[in-house]
Amino acid sequence: MFDLVIENGICFISGNFVESNIGITNNKIAYVGRESIKGREKINARGCLVLPGFFNAHTHSAMTILRGYAEGLPLDKWLDKVWKIEAMLDERSIYIASMLACIEMLKNGITCFSDMYIHMDSVARAVEETGIRAVLGYGMADRGSEERMEKELKIALDFIKNCENKERIKPMLTPHAIYTCSPEFLSRINDLANEMGLIKHIHASETLWEVKESKKKFGKTPIKLLDDIKFLDQRTVLAHCVWLSGDEINLIANRRTSVAHCPSSNLKLSSGIAKIAEMTENGVNVAIGTDGAASNNMLNIFSEIRLSALLQQLRKKFLSPVKYLEMATKNGYRAYGIDGGEIEKGKIADIIVVEPKIHQMPIYNYANSLVFSSNGCEVRDVIVNGKIVVEDRTPINVDDEKVVDQISKLKEKILGKA
Amino acid sequence: MFDLVIENGICFISGNFVESNIGITNNKIAYVGRESIKGREKINARGCLVLPGFFNAHTHSAMTILRGYAEGLPLDKWLDKVWKIEAMLDERSIYIASMLACIEMLKNGITCFSDMYIHMDSVARAVEETGIRAVLGYGMADRGSEERMEKELKIALDFIKNCENKERIKPMLTPHAIYTCSPEFLSRINDLANEMGLIKHIHASETLWEVKESKKKFGKTPIKLLDDIKFLDQRTVLAHCVWLSGDEINLIANRRTSVAHCPSSNLKLSSGIAKIAEMTENGVNVAIGTDGAASNNMLNIFSEIRLSALLQQLRKKFLSPVKYLEMATKNGYRAYGIDGGEIEKGKIADIIVVEPKIHQMPIYNYANSLVFSSNGCEVRDVIVNGKIVVEDRTPINVDDEKVVDQISKLKEKILGKA
Repeated sequence: MFDLVIENGICFISGNFVESNIGITNNKIAYVGRESIKGREKINARGCLVLPGFFNAHTHSAMTILRGYAEGLPLDKWLDKVWKIEAMLDERSIYIASMLACIEMLKNGITCFSDMYIHMDSVARAVEETGIRAVLGYGMADRGSEERMEKELKIALDFIKNCENKERIKPMLTPHAIYTCSPEFLSRINDLANEMGLIKHIHASETLWEVKESKKKFGKTPIKLLDDIKFLDQRTVLAHCVWLSGDEINLIANRRTSVAHCPSSNLKLSSGIAKIAEMTENGVNVAIGTDGAASNNMLNIFSEIRLSALLQQLRKKFLSPVKYLEMATKNGYRAYGIDGGEIEKGKIADIIVVEPKIHQMPIYNYANSLVFSSNGCEVRDVIVNGKIVVEDRTPINVDDEKVVDQISKLKEKILGKA
Repeated sequence: MFDLVIENGICFISGNFVESNIGITNNKIAYVGRESIKGREKINARGCLVLPGFFNAHTHSAMTILRGYAEGLPLDKWLDKVWKIEAMLDERSIYIASMLACIEMLKNGITCFSDMYIHMDSVARAVEETGIRAVLGYGMADRGSEERMEKELKIALDFIKNCENKERIKPMLTPHAIYTCSPEFLSRINDLANEMGLIKHIHASETLWEVKESKKKFGKTPIKLLDDIKFLDQRTVLAHCVWLSGDEINLIANRRTSVAHCPSSNLKLSSGIAKIAEMTENGVNVAIGTDGAASNNMLNIFSEIRLSALLQQLRKKFLSPVKYLEMATKNGYRAYGIDGGEIEKGKIADIIVVEPKIHQMPIYNYANSLVFSSNGCEVRDVIVNGKIVVEDRTPINVDDEKVVDQISKLKEKILGKA
């Protein structure tokens, strides 16, 4: 008798779609196969696709409060408006905005996300309450000040300590970028990460400006700088990586470092188009992120993989749609060292049930339909850590309407002060 | 007493969002304002956004049968597979595939579409049955053969004749492109269009290959060729226009010719990114199209305007989101000479009611939310020609399930022969 059984779905297993039943015990997948199995709870997935949950490999979830606030603006004017609001955010506003983000992500089939921002205890609280999984870090920047370095590290380490015993939260170290963190600070973070066995996550080579400034200031690119201080290893995730040379792609592959690719944000902020096909072909573990809702507006991995595939095709690079599904699932879990993202016995039970809709018909190939014709409305049920957290499109641990009401009031308050 | 009243919605009127009531008599908007009005039928739009319906300015609707059939392939291999299927399509399969397309479009808030393809009587039948509006033309290509020219014209003119007395269908003349239609054929079509007062719609400057071939063969670009034979006027719509020079943009603006911009398709088929910002700034009437489901997979104008805006931002071109809403609505109606696409007394009553969802919250600015955070699931009710055709997300003139069943069987049949 399993705790939960998902019956008769067409499951994404090792790159193929096969009809299987899934048995879950505690928080793990305990059975995958054709046998008829019994469970205390059952989900009938007949006619549905069953996938590992999506991993949002780079976001700032509380930036939902900034969604749609500044649009149609070039980067400098956009930043002016965004920073003005961010300076007003406190623990409570970060909590409300993160609740909104967690609900949206769950409804879109995201079972785990990676977040770096401020007031991370508030983000952790939203994760705990909604039932989603997350890898969280306080976004650090010393801006060359030793005093600031100590302060930032203290906040980050306090947060990590607060995450002890939180089952669905994995803390990490998240320096912002090489242009806001000194090499000394990054080295120190690196040593700490090695000592404590922590994931490191940093923005890297997002814009051409960043690469040029790095060359001017340090005589080398951000990637080379990070490698020289031994920052690049298999517990490192680099967000964006829009501007990489072929050598840098090989270096990142050799160091077994992962990349969090955020295509919508890279377009919206005029950053560029990442060389995802070359990274994938050269063995880089590429995962997919939405970035924050101020530079994307949607926390939706379906729209990111569709856009990623379209942008690579613009570059005349044609990867199989299965690759994009893997980027959205197992590559994210692998990047952050969590034993999930695959439907396989022993893996963590983060699973989604997707109901094909008329706008996806006819279906010749499930991967094609999922990557090119989906918008997120197709996600019916979501299981995180073996528990049902979205049932028939409704999040079951939270009151949506209350959160919508809270975010609307918060918006009014912010607009009053802006 | 109006036939239909839409009450208390926040209406997109002249580029702004204002709370209004709308009264509809027969197929036209008869009242817009704050007064309380009475109707035989009522839609309560409180808390919803009310917009003119979206115009899909370029598609081949029956290509839904090819959705997801050939993916992850370069153009030549993609075409091989697509052409093989197209050769098998008959009247009945085009009817079923068009029914599917019409349902999908209506559910996504598309109230009118422009289609060029084969077996257009079958497409017209789907339009009549589903309640959508369309501008339809038989896709002509003489490939330099005089015999073929006569045959193609006969099919096109017979179709136009068959459209007489069909209230929601406007026929047009649709030569395929300058590389499949001789200049003589295009001139003849032009003369006919002038005589009969018909819209002309043609693919133009979609790929760099097309422009290069045109220069090689005719010593000029496709746009210059079309202008030299006086094809460009205000009753002409050019699909794609990815490869235009600044002079060509000005020429198209001066001729008052419209452009149907299809961003997803242009990425998917590696065509390029159209200069939409420059076109708009120079006065070209730009409308938005999805293209067929084989080169996009979605018949969804929300995803096209979002992508269009993101792609222009990649090019460091920042148009106001209101411009994209106008491209999706009034510019399409204007391109095809239909007096709709605006919420204004006297205009044709093609209107949609959009219900804001949690993934769009908070809303600082309605245009921002609609352009950057919508995926189509937000469309609640759709009115075409004064009649409700989608109510609470359900198409009311058609049986969805029957169509899904038919398209699945058609897919099996095609796969059996492929």
